Amino acid sequence: MSDGEDLVAELVSGKYRALARTITKIENRSPGYRDLVADLHEHTGDAEVIGVTGSPGAGKSTLVDKLALRYREKGLSVGVIAVDPSSPYTGGAVLGDRVRMASTTGDMDVFVRSMGARGQLGGLSTATGDAIKAFDAFGMDRIVVETVGAGQNEVDIVRTADTVAVLVQPESGDDIQMLKAGILEIGDVFVVNKADMAGADRTVKQLSEMLEGRRDDGSGWEPEIVETVATSGEGIDGLLEALASHREYLESTGALAEKARARYAEEVRTLLREDAGELLEGEIDRRGGIEAVVDRIVARETDPYTVAAEIVEPLERCVEREEREETPPRR
Amino acid sequence: MSDGEDLVAELVSGKYRALARTITKIENRSPGYRDLVADLHEHTGDAEVIGVTGSPGAGKSTLVDKLALRYREKGLSVGVIAVDPSSPYTGGAVLGDRVRMASTTGDMDVFVRSMGARGQLGGLSTATGDAIKAFDAFGMDRIVVETVGAGQNEVDIVRTADTVAVLVQPESGDDIQMLKAGILEIGDVFVVNKADMAGADRTVKQLSEMLEGRRDDGSGWEPEIVETVATSGEGIDGLLEALASHREYLESTGALAEKARARYAEEVRTLLREDAGELLEGEIDRRGGIEAVVDRIVARETDPYTVAAEIVEPLERCVEREEREETPPRR
Repeated sequence: MSDGEDLVAELVSGKYRALARTITKIENRSPGYRDLVADLHEHTGDAEVIGVTGSPGAGKSTLVDKLALRYREKGLSVGVIAVDPSSPYTGGAVLGDRVRMASTTGDMDVFVRSMGARGQLGGLSTATGDAIKAFDAFGMDRIVVETVGAGQNEVDIVRTADTVAVLVQPESGDDIQMLKAGILEIGDVFVVNKADMAGADRTVKQLSEMLEGRRDDGSGWEPEIVETVATSGEGIDGLLEALASHREYLESTGALAEKARARYAEEVRTLLREDAGELLEGEIDRRGGIEAVVDRIVARETDPYTVAAEIVEPLERCVEREEREETPPRR
Repeated sequence: MSDGEDLVAELVSGKYRALARTITKIENRSPGYRDLVADLHEHTGDAEVIGVTGSPGAGKSTLVDKLALRYREKGLSVGVIAVDPSSPYTGGAVLGDRVRMASTTGDMDVFVRSMGARGQLGGLSTATGDAIKAFDAFGMDRIVVETVGAGQNEVDIVRTADTVAVLVQPESGDDIQMLKAGILEIGDVFVVNKADMAGADRTVKQLSEMLEGRRDDGSGWEPEIVETVATSGEGIDGLLEALASHREYLESTGALAEKARARYAEEVRTLLREDAGELLEGEIDRRGGIEAVVDRIVARETDPYTVAAEIVEPLERCVEREEREETPPRR
C-alpha cells in the first residue's frame, strides 16, 4: 500500500488530519498528489456542493458560517472551502480563526479551509475541484465553496458547485454592475443580505427585473430571490429551502447528472492541456529555450509555424507508431 | 515550386490578387495555409503596424480612412484590416464598399480587408497576425488594424500592432467604462474624436487624469491625447505626428524589437497549444470520444487524472525514445 493509499484510507475513515494533509498536498501539488486525487474519485459523488459568491462586504463569511451551523443542527456534516484568488495566502490563520469561531458553539464538525492563489490562476479552480473531492470522499454531506469577487476566476471556481448562491447588498451600485458582468447567468439562488438595511426592497425589485429574462431560458429553473440578515440568522431557513428546492430540481430533471458529466469532460481536457503544456515547454527547452527559438525567428532562419511543426510533428509520428504497435485501443 | 511558393512570389512582387487570395486562405485555414504563412515570414519586418480601437459609433472607420489617405498623400502604401469579432461575416461587401470609397479619390492603393470571427475566437487574433504578415510581405509601409469593441478578443487583436490608438467619444459614459476595462493600459495614443462636440474638453481632461497613473509606469512613454474631427479631417496631422512620435520612441529605446520578440514567443506557444489540442482530441477520439470517457469516470471505473495520464504518458515515452534515437538536438 502506498503512502497515498494509506492517506486516502484514513481520510475515508473520517480522520480530519488526513483530510487536512490531503488538501495541503493538493494545494502544493506535492509529488504524488495526482495519484492521491485519482484514488479519491471512487469515494466521491454523495456530497451536495453549494457555491457562494458576491462582492467584498456583502457578508459572505457570516452567511456561510450561519448556513454551515444550520446544516449541523440538522445533523449534517459540513465542509467549507473559502477561496480568495487575490490572496497569495492559503491555509493557516484564517483556517485557525474560523475553526475556532465554529468551535465556540461546541461544534468541531464544520471544517473550514481557506485557499489562495498560488502559482498560475487557472490552477485554482482545478485545486478547488480537487479539494471538493477530498471533502466528498471524507463523507461531508454539504460542501460550501465561498469565493470573493466577480472575475472569470471566480466564475470558474463557482462552477465547481451544483448550486450557486449569489449575494447582493442592498443599494450597492457595484453589485448591480457585477451582476451584469456574468454573475447573473450563474446564480441559481440570489440572496439579498443585510435585508434590514434601507433599500433592500428596491434591490429585490431590481434583481427580480434583471432576472426576468432568465425565467424563459428553457432550463426549467426560475432563479429564486431570498432575503437574509446573516448577522442575526434571519432568513437562513428560507435560504436552506431555496437551496434544497434547486437540488430537488437538479435531481428530478437529470440536470445534476449532466452537470457532473460536463464537469468531468472539462476536467479531463484541463488536465490534458496542463500536461501537454509541460511537455511542449520541455520540447522548447530541448531547443535551447524560447529565447533561442525567437532569436532564430528574428534572424529569419525559421518562423513560428515551422517551429511549431518541428515540435509537434515528431509527437504525431510517435502517436501513429504507437497506434500501429500496440493492441487495438478500446472503442 | 509549390502553389504556395508561387503565390508568395506573386504577393511579394506586388500583385493585389495574390494578396487577396493569401488572406482568404489564411481566413479559411485552407490546406497549405501554414506553409504559405511560413514562407511569408522572411519577407516581413518592414511595415509599421498601427492598431485602432474604440467603441461602436466613435468614428473609427472614418478616422482610419482619413489616416490611410493622409499616408497615401505622403507617398506611403497602406493596408487596412478591419476586424469585427462579433461578425461571422468576412471579406465581401464591406471590403468592396471601402475599396470603392477610397477609389473615388483616384487612389487604388488603400487595400481594405474586413475579417470576422469564423470558428473559434482565439483563432481571430492568430488570423489577424497572419494577415498582417501578408500585408507586410506585400510591401505595405503602414498597416492599420481596426477593431470594434473592448473585450478580451479586441485586446488580443490590437496587441498585434506596434502602436495602439484608442478612440474616445466626447461625454460618452460607455467609453469611460470601456477605458476602465483594460483599454486604458493598451493605448499609446488616445484620440478624442468628434472634438467639435460639446464636452470634448471635459473628456480630454478626464482622460488626462485617468492617464496620470501611467505617466510614471517606467516605460518611458507618456500616452498622448489628440483631438480630431474625422469627418472633416481636422487634427489628422496631429494624430500622424503622435503615431510617428511613438514609433520613434519604440525604435530608439529598443522597445520595438522587444515587442516583436514577445509576439514571436507568444505566437509559437499559441500554435503549439492549438496543435497539441488537436492531437489530444484525436487521442480522446481513439478512446471512443469524450462521452465514452466520461461514462467510465461516472461509473467510477476510472477518474480524470488517470485518463489524462493514460493519454499523455505514451506521448512522454515517445518523446524520450525520440531523444535517445535522434541525433543530439541543438542546445
